[in-house]
Amino acid sequence: MSVQTALDALSSLLGERLARSKSELDLHGRSESYFPARPPDAVAYPASTEEVQALVRICAEHDCPMVGWGAGTSLEGHGLAVRGGVVVDFSRMNRVLEVRPADMDVTVQPGVTREALNEELRATGLFFPVDPGANASLGGMAMTRASGTTTVRYGTMRDNVLGMQVVLADGRVIRTGTRARKSAAGYDLTGLMVGSEGTLGLVTELTLRLHGVPEATSAGICAFGDMQSAVTAVMETIQMGIPMARIEFVDSATARAFKDYSGMAMADAPHLLVEFHGSPESVAQDAERFAEIVADHGASPFRWSSREEERRALWALRHNGYYAVLASRKGARAVVTDMCVPISKLAQAVEETQADIAASMVPGPILGHVGDGNFHAILLIDPDQPAELEEAKRLSDRMAERALALGGTCTGEHGVGMGKTAFMRAEHGEGWDVMGQIKAALDPKGLMNPGKLVP
Amino acid sequence: MSVQTALDALSSLLGERLARSKSELDLHGRSESYFPARPPDAVAYPASTEEVQALVRICAEHDCPMVGWGAGTSLEGHGLAVRGGVVVDFSRMNRVLEVRPADMDVTVQPGVTREALNEELRATGLFFPVDPGANASLGGMAMTRASGTTTVRYGTMRDNVLGMQVVLADGRVIRTGTRARKSAAGYDLTGLMVGSEGTLGLVTELTLRLHGVPEATSAGICAFGDMQSAVTAVMETIQMGIPMARIEFVDSATARAFKDYSGMAMADAPHLLVEFHGSPESVAQDAERFAEIVADHGASPFRWSSREEERRALWALRHNGYYAVLASRKGARAVVTDMCVPISKLAQAVEETQADIAASMVPGPILGHVGDGNFHAILLIDPDQPAELEEAKRLSDRMAERALALGGTCTGEHGVGMGKTAFMRAEHGEGWDVMGQIKAALDPKGLMNPGKLVP
Repeated sequence: MSVQTALDALSSLLGERLARSKSELDLHGRSESYFPARPPDAVAYPASTEEVQALVRICAEHDCPMVGWGAGTSLEGHGLAVRGGVVVDFSRMNRVLEVRPADMDVTVQPGVTREALNEELRATGLFFPVDPGANASLGGMAMTRASGTTTVRYGTMRDNVLGMQVVLADGRVIRTGTRARKSAAGYDLTGLMVGSEGTLGLVTELTLRLHGVPEATSAGICAFGDMQSAVTAVMETIQMGIPMARIEFVDSATARAFKDYSGMAMADAPHLLVEFHGSPESVAQDAERFAEIVADHGASPFRWSSREEERRALWALRHNGYYAVLASRKGARAVVTDMCVPISKLAQAVEETQADIAASMVPGPILGHVGDGNFHAILLIDPDQPAELEEAKRLSDRMAERALALGGTCTGEHGVGMGKTAFMRAEHGEGWDVMGQIKAALDPKGLMNPGKLVP
Repeated sequence: MSVQTALDALSSLLGERLARSKSELDLHGRSESYFPARPPDAVAYPASTEEVQALVRICAEHDCPMVGWGAGTSLEGHGLAVRGGVVVDFSRMNRVLEVRPADMDVTVQPGVTREALNEELRATGLFFPVDPGANASLGGMAMTRASGTTTVRYGTMRDNVLGMQVVLADGRVIRTGTRARKSAAGYDLTGLMVGSEGTLGLVTELTLRLHGVPEATSAGICAFGDMQSAVTAVMETIQMGIPMARIEFVDSATARAFKDYSGMAMADAPHLLVEFHGSPESVAQDAERFAEIVADHGASPFRWSSREEERRALWALRHNGYYAVLASRKGARAVVTDMCVPISKLAQAVEETQADIAASMVPGPILGHVGDGNFHAILLIDPDQPAELEEAKRLSDRMAERALALGGTCTGEHGVGMGKTAFMRAEHGEGWDVMGQIKAALDPKGLMNPGKLVP
């Protein structure tokens, strides 16, 4: 009953902020994806680093697993307490601690969501660019190395976390990184923690890079005769050094779903949606140069605008993409895949994936962050047909294998969690054992998010 | 005599490529800096990953220390075999293995120098941007997390190494990373290895990001009434999102040295040297917008050009900076410092450092990568006066302490090596112990570059 002993001590520590009601446990026992529900034994709502430290010491003493929880938007079941224990919900640690406009950085607690941060930054002329779509918590985004539509310009969480405060498995509190823009002072512990999915510690503070809100923005859309032409146009744009802030691909099936969902006129064809950030002159030039490139590849005329309302309409289309695709099959649930490959292999990867999906019983529109070589198939399954879930998992596994065969990764931005552990050996070889050695060195009892990421 | 046993076995493995002559040992027993010479017991010249693996297995069996060696340009004594053993010189592993223009990446052996790589890339329209000044080896640059003049635009080695092949302390060979532009598949082992200074393994292959040679470049120079104005102008330029490819600061003492060395007319004042990359239109706009900003801060007119020969003359000035400063005191040797702070603290850091130097017996012109908050004082000492070396070390230590007090790092780009170990506890607190735990997990016998980086 060691977990029970831990819960009693945690209850003394946190009072009502240790929740054990069925509704709380259920809420923190399910994920956005297809993994079976697994309610934890309790949900803790710490309010400070000191409380997290005390919590970790109690759990360490009594061998009670600890699983971090941000906004619950993970697509790979990162927050599921598969070995029981306590889910540590950071929603009470949601303060923006300090904005430093001169240094273009900010220190936040892990429960702050990216939208809340950008709301807070509005008056500063700065913004935090990483945009995974969902309004995820910044702690969760750091821990899963999130990225999204703006990564082609602004990077992933790896590039935008300058430092962290982390409570380790034995209760030590460390600070990683500094506020300097770079450092050569030893192992990059910040980089090690980003993407560690809560298996090495619980993050209690983050210092993030900010970027200046661009003076001007242009955005536009065009259709292509085939996907290969779209990908080639993107490659040429990158090689010419035209700085895209967003470059999104949607296939014909997704374009149809967008059209049906939004009423916007769209050809039944692959499309690119693109955005440029800069000065009024530069964003116009970038758009015009891009228009020339896509015309060379047989695209429809690149319709672009630097007017805010047109830009918003375009990205509302993309941001509602998941819902538009979901609505294209009535009553469906989604299994979302996450391949990322070298860009020279992207067209092949998409084509082979489309062929797989066409030969299967489940529809799977494709959309992706083409500048990064990253795309998602949204496999639409009937939740009442177990065979469809099995088929979707089979397709998803084939995509992960294909990504590796093409020199890429089984997960571009969703993380390992529950869903990609089976591919870690194939992707990393003995490097996966090295991850296990690091885990064993820092969490010898295996209490931090057990059952995830490492062997 | 376990090292002796190892050397016998290495001699059988490598034949004449295990060198033991006094001249070879001396050549690999000294550094570019003030650290006492420490010749190794032997120098190995492996020609393949397999040979490195065999070498590591022999050394592991016989407890023989192993120290990697690239071009020997480290400023912190990284290559000194302070506990004896074998220096592993990678100069025979100097092939560019594969250039992939479509993916804008390249795989190289660790002994390739950055200049050799860029020579090889000349016909492709691509280049490798990280430029620490010295013609360092790419393996050494990765292992010290090198950066330099272009980091403000293109990042450090951390941002430009996509993956590595590494021989670990027990002889396992792992591949880290993939050729995909991003990944969320587990701990970032590439990021852990970059900056690890050979203490976790020997790198035998690197895959690097390449960038398109800009269509056009503009570059220019201007003088300021004081250093604070120069720094403020840089901060405004960054906040406005004007993309600088290089932004270098030199103080009055450095400007005098430049003038004397090159004959170029330069005011006795702080200067900024800046470069923009882009299209012909954008680099002209960027230069004009920058000219407006610096004029607002009382600078001399920003003289800029997009002509290649003028640009080359400007950067030859900067690249010869070290020699120009060295020539400013006859017969002097240099102790080079490496502070990096949040940019809002940069003016204060430079001012206090200048005051320290002015109050000391040694001259120390200052120059730096102002966009990163990183600067170097080149402390000029008479090698025949031990008191001057002691004074230079005292100044250097004060600068490291000052960097930490201002929220920065004791080493922006030169690494820990021999010179910064004393500041690791102050910079990382218990995080330094975490580095030690990782080291112990992966190299329990402590044979990989012992005496460096970890406690």
